[in-house]
Amino acid sequence: MGGVSARLEDLPLRPDLRGQKPYGAPQAPLPVALNVNENTHPVPQDVADDILDSIARALRDVNRYPDREFTALREGFAEYLGHGLTRDQIWAANGSNEVLQHILQAFAGPGRTAFGFSPTYSMYPLLTRGTGAQWVSGTRAADYTVSASDAASQVADAAPDVVFLCAPNNPTGTPLHLDVVEAVYEAADGIVIVDEAYFEFAPADARSALTLLPGRERLVVSRTMSKAFAFAGARVGYLAADPALIDALRLVRLPYHLSALTQAAASAALRHAPVMLGMVDEIVAQRDRITATVEALGYTPHESWTNFVLFGGVDDPATTWQALYDQGVLIRDVGIPHHLRVTAGTADETTAFLDALASVGSAA
Amino acid sequence: MGGVSARLEDLPLRPDLRGQKPYGAPQAPLPVALNVNENTHPVPQDVADDILDSIARALRDVNRYPDREFTALREGFAEYLGHGLTRDQIWAANGSNEVLQHILQAFAGPGRTAFGFSPTYSMYPLLTRGTGAQWVSGTRAADYTVSASDAASQVADAAPDVVFLCAPNNPTGTPLHLDVVEAVYEAADGIVIVDEAYFEFAPADARSALTLLPGRERLVVSRTMSKAFAFAGARVGYLAADPALIDALRLVRLPYHLSALTQAAASAALRHAPVMLGMVDEIVAQRDRITATVEALGYTPHESWTNFVLFGGVDDPATTWQALYDQGVLIRDVGIPHHLRVTAGTADETTAFLDALASVGSAA
Repeated sequence: MGGVSARLEDLPLRPDLRGQKPYGAPQAPLPVALNVNENTHPVPQDVADDILDSIARALRDVNRYPDREFTALREGFAEYLGHGLTRDQIWAANGSNEVLQHILQAFAGPGRTAFGFSPTYSMYPLLTRGTGAQWVSGTRAADYTVSASDAASQVADAAPDVVFLCAPNNPTGTPLHLDVVEAVYEAADGIVIVDEAYFEFAPADARSALTLLPGRERLVVSRTMSKAFAFAGARVGYLAADPALIDALRLVRLPYHLSALTQAAASAALRHAPVMLGMVDEIVAQRDRITATVEALGYTPHESWTNFVLFGGVDDPATTWQALYDQGVLIRDVGIPHHLRVTAGTADETTAFLDALASVGSAA
Repeated sequence: MGGVSARLEDLPLRPDLRGQKPYGAPQAPLPVALNVNENTHPVPQDVADDILDSIARALRDVNRYPDREFTALREGFAEYLGHGLTRDQIWAANGSNEVLQHILQAFAGPGRTAFGFSPTYSMYPLLTRGTGAQWVSGTRAADYTVSASDAASQVADAAPDVVFLCAPNNPTGTPLHLDVVEAVYEAADGIVIVDEAYFEFAPADARSALTLLPGRERLVVSRTMSKAFAFAGARVGYLAADPALIDALRLVRLPYHLSALTQAAASAALRHAPVMLGMVDEIVAQRDRITATVEALGYTPHESWTNFVLFGGVDDPATTWQALYDQGVLIRDVGIPHHLRVTAGTADETTAFLDALASVGSAA
């Protein structure tokens, strides 16, 4: 091109974006990557073959725009979720971030507020501000739980337009029980989103907020295929809610936001849900092994209903993170003092992490 | 679920969305669909096979998040566009609508304005309002052209934060020459987007605004794979601009917004660009045939550098549209009085349209 490139400061960027850095979990090609709560088990070959067959069919008319209403995919999600849900109650987008963005665009945006109990998923404030709304942080107990009465009281005081309940919570792993959802819904006038991104890793008898949907037209339950479904690369998030709420999302989504390839891949993966989810028990076993072992090493793991473990008692997280990195193990410093977070990997990956952590020495 | 579904009016929707209808070109399963400017030629089988091989490789680690920087794809676009561009000057997203949305999020949004010469692509005002900015309409001459001096004068008066120049223009097909781009850039303090979605259908000696990028750090040239590339179903739009402007888009895009499947499919398609674009000449021939024939039928086609023709002299567009629909031919009423728009299809599809239009009778 020639010429000297401009600097970002030379461009008429929005004032609220000046000085910001892009979202960025480090992407490093380390042998053991346990930093972004992926499912580290690949999709089984026979499932991949069927997904590929579906994509091959979709490619035959990829010159045409995709089904804007992704009807077959919504039917697939309704069937997978059960609870008598129908396609009219389902929405999906390119990752749960986009699903949540659609809700914020419809029900928050400029002049409105969104609320969550910190520490919680770091994208909530970014998505909120990205749509022009203001983020309001609530608080949790020292063990990161939040009781129904405290949650309701905080929500009533803040009177937000959108409430995020991450259940179980990221980055802490903390369960959130349905009494909290019920109490927050009663206390709120706005939309209440229960983000069940990690729900499949909860105990088998845990109840989903999907059971609370009937009669609660402001309630949303969001899910993702990125975690239990081992489909992070395909970027598919979805939600269930009242059909009227789904109609509101049609006002803000970009036309044809879900590609024909995404629709085909996700629909095929859903047909193999039991196989796709087959590794969940193994991942839960590795998670519990992490919890027990880091505790034995003198750290303080927090209860987790997810595929990761947050553990405290880390004298200097940056030093420990780097020591693990130098041994080829990538985990996550989520910015909570004296804490680190690690994803449960395969048995071998988990062993590599635990051995590396042990070699760093026990907690202070 | 049981219970009566809520109504949209019962939900705390943003006030500015109340009463709106979702974007919707009719999706009807007619034999001859010439309504949304798709490329009606399927992707050749050998190219589809290679795309599928690339997707098969991507599926092997679809359990992992995709390359957030889609580096290989940006390299592919830089090579395809030429003009000495490098990957640092390239951005992409799920359709050019999302590419444009990213620009608006970074440089327009609440309290700012975006501007375009009406009639132009109907998504510009929707995208603008969707990001909280205000849309300002400029005007064109009666034949839908806009001169450099008039364009610069209107832009100087409006002083918008973002200017859209659709070149050639949708839904009119009108060419827009580089002197207009240069004059508007000089007159503007904000970002100037030249939307070249249909550029591949322009005469072979037409110059792209890509040639104007050096030294113009506020200039953006956007493209899409949906039209000439016959890839509408894959949802891939892209742009070229100064690296600093690309950095600004990283602040507003959702993390991992482009799936591993999309990246693989688009990269593979780009490797076959000459074949993928092989139908352009044939489409241009059909477009010119439409122009000549509708003129012979007494209508007034507008000059088109795209894959569609807007024609006037239609007594009652709704009636003509329905008469064609009843004969299995779907075209588009774009809301311009006494006009209809038709996409150039295959030779057979084009014949079906022209025969159906002739059977409706000549223009009044």
